[in-house]
Amino acid sequence: MRDVARLAGVSVATVSFVVNDSKPVSPATRLRVESAMVELDFRRNAVARALASRRTRIIALLFPVLQHRLSDNAARFFTGAAEAAAELGYTVVLWPEPSDPDALREFTSDGLIDGVILMEVRLDDHRVDRLLAAGTPLTLIGRTRDPSGLDYVDVDFEGMVELSIDRLQALGHREFALLEEVERADLDGYGPVVRVQETFHAVCAARGLRARTLQCTPDPAGGREIAATLQEEAPEVTAVLVLNDRAALGFVSELGRRGVSVPDDLSVVLVASTREVSEAADPALAVTLLPAAQLGRMGVETLIGRLDGTLGELRHELVMGAFLEGASLAPPR
Amino acid sequence: MRDVARLAGVSVATVSFVVNDSKPVSPATRLRVESAMVELDFRRNAVARALASRRTRIIALLFPVLQHRLSDNAARFFTGAAEAAAELGYTVVLWPEPSDPDALREFTSDGLIDGVILMEVRLDDHRVDRLLAAGTPLTLIGRTRDPSGLDYVDVDFEGMVELSIDRLQALGHREFALLEEVERADLDGYGPVVRVQETFHAVCAARGLRARTLQCTPDPAGGREIAATLQEEAPEVTAVLVLNDRAALGFVSELGRRGVSVPDDLSVVLVASTREVSEAADPALAVTLLPAAQLGRMGVETLIGRLDGTLGELRHELVMGAFLEGASLAPPR
Repeated sequence: MRDVARLAGVSVATVSFVVNDSKPVSPATRLRVESAMVELDFRRNAVARALASRRTRIIALLFPVLQHRLSDNAARFFTGAAEAAAELGYTVVLWPEPSDPDALREFTSDGLIDGVILMEVRLDDHRVDRLLAAGTPLTLIGRTRDPSGLDYVDVDFEGMVELSIDRLQALGHREFALLEEVERADLDGYGPVVRVQETFHAVCAARGLRARTLQCTPDPAGGREIAATLQEEAPEVTAVLVLNDRAALGFVSELGRRGVSVPDDLSVVLVASTREVSEAADPALAVTLLPAAQLGRMGVETLIGRLDGTLGELRHELVMGAFLEGASLAPPR
Repeated sequence: MRDVARLAGVSVATVSFVVNDSKPVSPATRLRVESAMVELDFRRNAVARALASRRTRIIALLFPVLQHRLSDNAARFFTGAAEAAAELGYTVVLWPEPSDPDALREFTSDGLIDGVILMEVRLDDHRVDRLLAAGTPLTLIGRTRDPSGLDYVDVDFEGMVELSIDRLQALGHREFALLEEVERADLDGYGPVVRVQETFHAVCAARGLRARTLQCTPDPAGGREIAATLQEEAPEVTAVLVLNDRAALGFVSELGRRGVSVPDDLSVVLVASTREVSEAADPALAVTLLPAAQLGRMGVETLIGRLDGTLGELRHELVMGAFLEGASLAPPR
């Protein structure tokens, strides 16, 4: 306030009158004070001070929307989060991640936001370090390579893959394939993809099942291409786990067109997807559901529990989705 | 500030020292002042005052996420909005609409938000009245029955329907059907549905084309059901416009299973959808694209133009999406 007064050439009291609107001030003086305030970024500090020991009850779901398009599933996370927040008297807003990484550190410094839920977490995620360095209360949906010091809730991808293999193995399948996206630089180090791959191969190896990976572009055309060459490239495969929704639809549709019957010739399980995608395929696919709304809800409850001081120890929780049977499972021929 | 001082039993200067952290104050006194501030909801007013003539450069895309699940397309609106805001030095956050309608009026009163972009606008929309009554700067994506006094950008649903009919008519089609959702209470008065229906029937009537409406549940099963009965119920139809993405996938897949060829037996156009949905069908469907990201961008540019005073007259703009040919159009048999 002293700096503003000096810059505007008025008394500290006059600045106070303008800020608090507590006494009339001439328009010219007000303008001088306001200009000085802008120059000194006074506003920011004023808000920060006013809020320093207070809470806005607004939390942010930080999503890298400028880098990844917001998916249907991310939208479900947000819906679950919004419901939980409303129940607990908070508002959760979906906040695009600043494109400048350095802006992250200042993200909560103006006190508008009580805390942050971070999504699309990578195994090594610089955002976590930056937010922690800024002292921002933080919960992860997802987890880093070593999340031991952080609150997180995450999808139990390992459990979902193992459950899918369980079901197929119980039907007699021994020749497995995982259909997944071609490696992309922007997926490198993205936890879900890495965890599904590793679990698939580890579980198959431990059980003496044959396992191979089929990679395609993440769209219906990619799935169709794999379906077109499957009989030639991988004739032994009788059970396929699919990790990409859009590829799954093309894959199943092209199998049908080629007279390969799902499930009689090939059993298919969709991993970490939705009832809607399952039903859009013909036949409807067996699917391990991504518990998106539940994760969004748990992320909010965890962060608010931490903010309110009602959460004691660190929360580390993995959540399985339900298994929907669909019509894509049968014993191998 | 005087009320806080009186309640805390300290001088106005002491309150000022605490708020501005400008002089050391004993912990006990600080606690008394802070308690009084809480009691008087001082925080809220302090922030409001500090921000009264200032701007946070945060705008909210208000979405009824607790009533409608956030769709894939809504997510695209948000991505476009976030990009435009970042370019203009603003942040746009996706803000769930308060479930209590009265809370809307207070929504921007604490000055955290400079303005609001409203989505999922209904023909008669109480939210518009409430936000206007609160003096909130407002832009609509969508429009009310009479939006003449408001800034809005909207999808040109009328133009998209007419363009679709143009293409089909040029191929020789004269027997049209519109496949759309069964009437639902929560869609009553929802502009896009009403406008597509009205335009479809008006354009067909004006051109002497036969038009009928087929209604189904908004999911693949609903689309399959229509496909299963189409030959019997509406054997004359050679061209179908589909307004629901999920129904479209079931509709086309079931036609294929029954040996009805798209496009040789039936031409199909998807209205207001995406390339992804078009490509998930087999064959890929002709589609008028919903220009979601562009609308999100224009909504942000309009609101910021209004906030910054660079936008003169009211902006009323309708935007067409591109027409993708797909492989679902042919002359009638």
